[in-house]
Amino acid sequence: MIVTLITDFGYTDPYVGSMKGVMLGINPDVQIVDITHDVTPQNIDEAAFILKRSYSFFPEGTMHVIVVDPGVGSTRSIIGVKTDSALFLAPDNGVLKYIFYHHSVKVYQITNQDYFRDHVSHTFHGRDIFAPIAAHMSRGITLDILGQPSENYIKGELSNPVVEAEHISGEITYIDRFGNGITNIGGNLVTGLKKMQIHIKTTTVKKLSNRYIDVPLGEPLALIGSGNTLEISVHQGNAAQQIGFRVGDPITVSFE
Amino acid sequence: MIVTLITDFGYTDPYVGSMKGVMLGINPDVQIVDITHDVTPQNIDEAAFILKRSYSFFPEGTMHVIVVDPGVGSTRSIIGVKTDSALFLAPDNGVLKYIFYHHSVKVYQITNQDYFRDHVSHTFHGRDIFAPIAAHMSRGITLDILGQPSENYIKGELSNPVVEAEHISGEITYIDRFGNGITNIGGNLVTGLKKMQIHIKTTTVKKLSNRYIDVPLGEPLALIGSGNTLEISVHQGNAAQQIGFRVGDPITVSFE
Amino acid sequence: MIVTLITDFGYTDPYVGSMKGVMLGINPDVQIVDITHDVTPQNIDEAAFILKRSYSFFPEGTMHVIVVDPGVGSTRSIIGVKTDSALFLAPDNGVLKYIFYHHSVKVYQITNQDYFRDHVSHTFHGRDIFAPIAAHMSRGITLDILGQPSENYIKGELSNPVVEAEHISGEITYIDRFGNGITNIGGNLVTGLKKMQIHIKTTTVKKLSNRYIDVPLGEPLALIGSGNTLEISVHQGNAAQQIGFRVGDPITVSFE
Repeated sequence: MIVTLITDFGYTDPYVGSMKGVMLGINPDVQIVDITHDVTPQNIDEAAFILKRSYSFFPEGTMHVIVVDPGVGSTRSIIGVKTDSALFLAPDNGVLKYIFYHHSVKVYQITNQDYFRDHVSHTFHGRDIFAPIAAHMSRGITLDILGQPSENYIKGELSNPVVEAEHISGEITYIDRFGNGITNIGGNLVTGLKKMQIHIKTTTVKKLSNRYIDVPLGEPLALIGSGNTLEISVHQGNAAQQIGFRVGDPITVSFE
Repeated sequence: MIVTLITDFGYTDPYVGSMKGVMLGINPDVQIVDITHDVTPQNIDEAAFILKRSYSFFPEGTMHVIVVDPGVGSTRSIIGVKTDSALFLAPDNGVLKYIFYHHSVKVYQITNQDYFRDHVSHTFHGRDIFAPIAAHMSRGITLDILGQPSENYIKGELSNPVVEAEHISGEITYIDRFGNGITNIGGNLVTGLKKMQIHIKTTTVKKLSNRYIDVPLGEPLALIGSGNTLEISVHQGNAAQQIGFRVGDPITVSFE
Repeated sequence: MIVTLITDFGYTDPYVGSMKGVMLGINPDVQIVDITHDVTPQNIDEAAFILKRSYSFFPEGTMHVIVVDPGVGSTRSIIGVKTDSALFLAPDNGVLKYIFYHHSVKVYQITNQDYFRDHVSHTFHGRDIFAPIAAHMSRGITLDILGQPSENYIKGELSNPVVEAEHISGEITYIDRFGNGITNIGGNLVTGLKKMQIHIKTTTVKKLSNRYIDVPLGEPLALIGSGNTLEISVHQGNAAQQIGFRVGDPITVSFE
């Protein structure tokens, strides 16, 4: 079974290696795929977005483990989630909000300590709970053995755009390595509009482009990105730096 | 089959994970090896160099996928390349220049959309074309099924050193993590010279060393590096910082 | 066989990829796990600590390869080490100090050039010696074929805390991505003390906590970390930045 990892443990410390060691000790055949370990420390929204934009490309039956866990050692639960095509293991902190929004799910609180490491630290559940539980799940141990069904989990809130008569108000959800600003405005909301003006900080973009090359080098543009939402880019440049936006900044699409 | 990846997608965003998900969905047995995802965004020359310095160490039959693709969404082609020992998949932008220079090649334009993802975005061909094509190639689908032979591809230009009567003029091709300056001056051009002076910025090195320890700690030196070209280093220090050179800076070897 | 890698080669340069290519050419079935390639260049102590905190979580029989090697090309040896549960391959520079301290070991100087790459550079033994030796070891070639038993290796020195009548003097051994300061003071030395004051820079912590949430957000705390030593943290903050400590800084635990 493929098990993907999304954590904020970074690429330097021994933490990811420890998790992999534990997993391989339980299931030597587990196929671990790193999605990223570079989530900003304790940034649940960022991890949620990275999961949203990657999980659906993996084959059916893949398990996704997310360890971005500012509440480690508190009374927060750990949850296992089953959709019709994938498994998820994460702290109960809203990091699965997009999964809950887009799928019908069965949610379990993971409570069966028989499948934890013998000694569970208060600060590193990634190694002591997530890794062994994930490895056991990859060997076929089912969620009803590992815990109890739960309705009482944190759904999390999506920041949806507001559509009004004359404009849509959204925000920058994520900024990627290239400086592209990915918004929460679905492509379907803006495709086919005859006229529009997109306002982000002091920049105005007056149309939707199809490709980066539709504008001159260094010019800002708007297009429907590879995740089917509105994105703000600069042709072979860094839009976030050039326009000066950050995650959470408002963006407006005026119909006119 | 081993498939290596060189991209500028970084280690944070969901892009590399998405590519791997697509590949594993098509070929669960593909053996993916990350060479790097940290190429400077859109820096074709850097990717070309990293490929040059790594591909030949992989076993015969390995496929190398390079996605550093500032022209994504334009009319640039995607090419599959076959040498007598390896396969390459890359945008047609010169990133394979060292391969073309050192091997006889068969080059194909990849055009068979039956092997692309169903919906191809204009901004993420890594996920929508490169990943599925690579995975199909790793399952044995041949280039003549995936496209057409092409002679009309971008060969790219190597920056070769200029050898004159009294000196060789070259440049810094790459600076590694340790601050070593790797030049385009082949080791064969300088080995065995009785006298030489190497000039880089305001620093002069008066001989070729064999090992870092041939000079005192903190002193600059020149040696034939592990890629068989002249390198400028500092013994347990960072030559690029200490001497102040950057990629593209000229270096001169005087025979005297 | 699982082979883990700890290097200071970084995630950008072609060096790690080259090593993996060499290993896969010799043993296509080797299962390579990256622990980290982001050790601070030439920082032996940091690599030793990362190894210490990860190796024991891997299954019995795992081989750990550490290439942090400021003496590459000098007369320093390369050693293969066998404990009752694992194998290690490293330069003879003290990077295995924790292994020597905690295990009985058989140490071999690796000298059999038949198992090196044909041409061995003076600057990249990772590719030319470590990778092929590791791959051959993963295929079952034993240390007595690859070299000679040695007693004459660098044991390295642990920086142990000093326990006195009224206090313990230790130091910050490692700072992780979250800014946690991991000390060399074993948890057993401080657990169960009725009263204590922990002094680090100008900050004083007056008790041992169990969990981050035992103190208010943004407040410093001390706990026994996941490696069973005293750690200094800030609840959902970065202790190293907030308190201003660095690796090597002294920390004192007063009993009062």
